[in-house]
Amino acid sequence: MEENKKIRVAITHGDTNGIGYEIIFKTFSDPAMLELCTPIIYGSPKVATFHRKMLDLPVNFTIINTAEDAHEGKLNLLTTFDEEVKVEIGQPSKEAGSAALKALERAMTDFRNGLFDVLVTAPINKNNIQSEAFHFAGHTEYIETSVGEGNKALMILLNEKLRVALVTTHLPISEVAKSITKERIEEKATIFYNSLKRDFRISNPRIAVLGLNPHAGDGGVIGNEEQEFIKPAIEELSENGIQAFGPYPADGFFGSESYNEFDGVLAMYHDQGLAPFKTIAEDDGVNFTAGLPIVRTSPAHGTAYDIAGKGTADENSFRQAVYLAIDVFRNRIEYDEPLANPLKKLYHEHRDESEKVRFAIQKKREE
Amino acid sequence: MEENKKIRVAITHGDTNGIGYEIIFKTFSDPAMLELCTPIIYGSPKVATFHRKMLDLPVNFTIINTAEDAHEGKLNLLTTFDEEVKVEIGQPSKEAGSAALKALERAMTDFRNGLFDVLVTAPINKNNIQSEAFHFAGHTEYIETSVGEGNKALMILLNEKLRVALVTTHLPISEVAKSITKERIEEKATIFYNSLKRDFRISNPRIAVLGLNPHAGDGGVIGNEEQEFIKPAIEELSENGIQAFGPYPADGFFGSESYNEFDGVLAMYHDQGLAPFKTIAEDDGVNFTAGLPIVRTSPAHGTAYDIAGKGTADENSFRQAVYLAIDVFRNRIEYDEPLANPLKKLYHEHRDESEKVRFAIQKKREE
Repeated sequence: MEENKKIRVAITHGDTNGIGYEIIFKTFSDPAMLELCTPIIYGSPKVATFHRKMLDLPVNFTIINTAEDAHEGKLNLLTTFDEEVKVEIGQPSKEAGSAALKALERAMTDFRNGLFDVLVTAPINKNNIQSEAFHFAGHTEYIETSVGEGNKALMILLNEKLRVALVTTHLPISEVAKSITKERIEEKATIFYNSLKRDFRISNPRIAVLGLNPHAGDGGVIGNEEQEFIKPAIEELSENGIQAFGPYPADGFFGSESYNEFDGVLAMYHDQGLAPFKTIAEDDGVNFTAGLPIVRTSPAHGTAYDIAGKGTADENSFRQAVYLAIDVFRNRIEYDEPLANPLKKLYHEHRDESEKVRFAIQKKREE
Repeated sequence: MEENKKIRVAITHGDTNGIGYEIIFKTFSDPAMLELCTPIIYGSPKVATFHRKMLDLPVNFTIINTAEDAHEGKLNLLTTFDEEVKVEIGQPSKEAGSAALKALERAMTDFRNGLFDVLVTAPINKNNIQSEAFHFAGHTEYIETSVGEGNKALMILLNEKLRVALVTTHLPISEVAKSITKERIEEKATIFYNSLKRDFRISNPRIAVLGLNPHAGDGGVIGNEEQEFIKPAIEELSENGIQAFGPYPADGFFGSESYNEFDGVLAMYHDQGLAPFKTIAEDDGVNFTAGLPIVRTSPAHGTAYDIAGKGTADENSFRQAVYLAIDVFRNRIEYDEPLANPLKKLYHEHRDESEKVRFAIQKKREE
């Protein structure tokens, strides 16, 4: 990013029968948002016009054909395809899934070419988007494969009060237990730790690790993954300087609001982390894909077919997703700066290696 | 129960190193509680005295040797064993587990002999109580086997706002998916339905059924138990006159507070239901064992070793458990009365069979 340019936020329009355009338009009908960033909707002018008219929203967009033409101070709409798409509000359809995918594909290409800074995705329907080009359980897995450059993604859900990351994401319950290994927990906790430091600028993050089984296994009476994998992982993480604690029983942990004492909570599987998270987060939850070169966020809700087209969708989660993407992008620049140009002379004069050691550890972890 | 007698509430003291005696004493230090019922603590005078002294609680109890001697207007303490027990506050110990079990065993015997009306259990440690006589994952399973008379128990967690029941309870995650069958869901939903009618006096209960997998399987992309077992179960329940809906994705369901539209929520496994429940319930959650001849409740929390002996335990959940046990006992009497003596003549004169049919269905379900 050049110094004087605003952060370029790519926004994929998501499922065209859901509330994607509604929350995008509502967010950017606030002029202050255009002061903050240069939004580029990856979408379709026809579908966008349909939604704007139907919902009678006070928003203007400027149609562009390449992200390089994005105007500062405008809501840019990049034409990712020009075919007609039948919009069937509130209905899952193959066409809507295909429209969502086209926008995503173009965004992946443009990111590789450096045409935007951060990505915010409107919700897709994980069912109708499936195709030869998309055989993933969700955005997270698709983006990891497309532009992850070999890095592993970590799904983090967050709001003002807590950050929850998942060891396993869109996995059937029948496959969860066998996917919980010491290595996997350590890998995810390490990505989480690095993200809390670099993306959220927490200098010494504390991570709570949940158990897998009810009551975290109750000392082995209800499953032994805690003894076999989770506790050893926590011990090894601690030995490596990562402050990890637990394993905690999920129900008591959330019930007693213990998350207030930690910077992040690592849950073992989707509903264990997300059901309590959404209970707490209400309408301000944001999904962040950590661990990848791309900064990608999304609202924590889905296509919301049931309220699509009614004009009642709450855009707050989407707006928070935009804010977070921008914050993380800036935090990364700030964090990387001293590492790129370490003040070698200073350390030398102090004859105190502690700072140097700290940087060295960080560097190693990020490799 | 004789007409003029107060409801006799048996209370097992639970793990003697936890907060059991503290929450019992705090609850019954309120004289109004003794107006409401006749409490009988199944415990040990020595341990009780130790806790009372340590916590300096303003409560008196009357030692009795058989439940038949319980005095109205007093806090009765039934000696279930007379050996010395070493109390190690906040520590799990074999002795504390054994003390908990002795109280439970005596309560089971006394219930069979009709010596009390309802049972409220203080928390046990599911680990140290294990022995030849107790090889269960928790109270629910132990009580089902001991005094269930062949009926299946259903674990319901509730507070003012919602009631959550579990299809599987204290099961390792690795065994959850294979335990979800159409029959099991129908069985649990039917017990739930009957309990909502008889124990909670809801005339036509609506039950929300959660999915097993993330996003309730997203149309088969993330697991197929929803298609194979859960949807068919819901359909069959509806055909049998039980209003069951779903399957709903757990995270969105709790996040959007959809539970407000239902009388009960049937979750597929422990943390899926209990983590959101405890997040919502805070300190007023109660556990109720439905489906059995015995009315049994307990607070929704555990032994709370971390705060044991400090005097800071909140007794509200325990007090709510006592209230609920009394309410359910009364509701059952009320509900059973017209069934025991149906007003045959009335139906005959009306020539309208609808009421009769309704009762017939209920009766059948309860057999």
